[in-house]
Amino acid sequence: MPAIKPKPKAFIFDIFGTIVDWRSGVATVCEHHFKQKNIELCPHTFADAWRAKYQPAMEKIRSGNRGYFALDILHRENLDQLLAEHELTNSFSETEKQELNKAWEKLPPWSDSVEGLSELKKVAIIAPCSNGSISLMTRLAKFGNLPWDCILGAEIANNYKPNAEVYLKSVAAIGLNPDEVVMVAAHNSDLDAARDCGLQTAFIPRSTEHGKGQQIDLEPTSEWDYIISTIGALAAH
Amino acid sequence: MPAIKPKPKAFIFDIFGTIVDWRSGVATVCEHHFKQKNIELCPHTFADAWRAKYQPAMEKIRSGNRGYFALDILHRENLDQLLAEHELTNSFSETEKQELNKAWEKLPPWSDSVEGLSELKKVAIIAPCSNGSISLMTRLAKFGNLPWDCILGAEIANNYKPNAEVYLKSVAAIGLNPDEVVMVAAHNSDLDAARDCGLQTAFIPRSTEHGKGQQIDLEPTSEWDYIISTIGALAAH
Repeated sequence: MPAIKPKPKAFIFDIFGTIVDWRSGVATVCEHHFKQKNIELCPHTFADAWRAKYQPAMEKIRSGNRGYFALDILHRENLDQLLAEHELTNSFSETEKQELNKAWEKLPPWSDSVEGLSELKKVAIIAPCSNGSISLMTRLAKFGNLPWDCILGAEIANNYKPNAEVYLKSVAAIGLNPDEVVMVAAHNSDLDAARDCGLQTAFIPRSTEHGKGQQIDLEPTSEWDYIISTIGALAAH
Repeated sequence: MPAIKPKPKAFIFDIFGTIVDWRSGVATVCEHHFKQKNIELCPHTFADAWRAKYQPAMEKIRSGNRGYFALDILHRENLDQLLAEHELTNSFSETEKQELNKAWEKLPPWSDSVEGLSELKKVAIIAPCSNGSISLMTRLAKFGNLPWDCILGAEIANNYKPNAEVYLKSVAAIGLNPDEVVMVAAHNSDLDAARDCGLQTAFIPRSTEHGKGQQIDLEPTSEWDYIISTIGALAAH
């Protein structure tokens, strides 16, 4: 019989895909800039290509081949690469490239996120445990009215998920034991890593994170502690 | 003529004394515990004595003679010393000592703090830049409804104010330049250190922080950028 787990005192959240719709948000900002320049690129394809460079960029840091740089810097490096691949390097000024990079600060929350977090905040500590920096998480919270109690995640550990340090240092920073904290994510792999660190887990499917033809993370791939369809459902538990 | 300073994009705050009334808060919790044990100690004198051990404890870390330990741990060490000085070490169980130490998580905000911060949050990033840990700041915010955007301060730098790193790493963590950020404090020495780092400064006198006979920080001792009587006045500027 599995051990009874303690009542959660905190819920920590993956952000990109779990709380906010990064693909629509990035595409909206890119579309605006592309139109101004008469660039005929699909903004959603561009957003997907930008995001595709995310894991390889972090892997250099996770593997120890590069020191910690905040995600804002990795996003900008990836943007520069992507523009070069499309021969668009000279199509944007430095200021415009900075504006494009701020697309990641303007991502719409999923429709249930703000209300659900607000409910949950009444009964527990809520915080991002994202690969985004404190700066990025702060601005994203202001953009989308996400009512965090504090900001945890990559910058607390100077490393990137799914490295164990990110979960463990985030939990330690709020003075709790791992089994008192629930990691909430739309990605099974994130929960796998969190469970290995002793955290409780909650899976919420986000079936259009990658657009209409999404193939991954449509279902839980393990027996997570909670499987929910809205963030608010966690407060009801 | 002095250079014109940029419009502030963030306000970062000293907490103990500036936003919350630590002396009343600590005394309230101590009084409750002392009464249960029939201990005839003045809780305000006890709070003052506990606080008096604060600077020496941090100084060991600032001077490099000790690695970084969160303030929660220093508070507990100081409590243990203080109880020993009063021959009360065995009067409290370990659980009761932990409860006493949590007094620092239950400090009432000054009457203008919550409303002023809520106003300011509409126009800028607001965050603690305190010597308190992320855990302590998070719990204090929940206790007093302090609506922070994120939590900065000692734990971001693994050092203690007035060490420059605490101000500079706090500012860097929100992606701003020092002159885009205002340090708000009821302590002239805190503002001195922040100004040396290039931050803008705001002084708010809290004339009863140390009780009725307070002698220090009743007036600004320098030409700070803002001198205010309520937190809300910053939003009006």
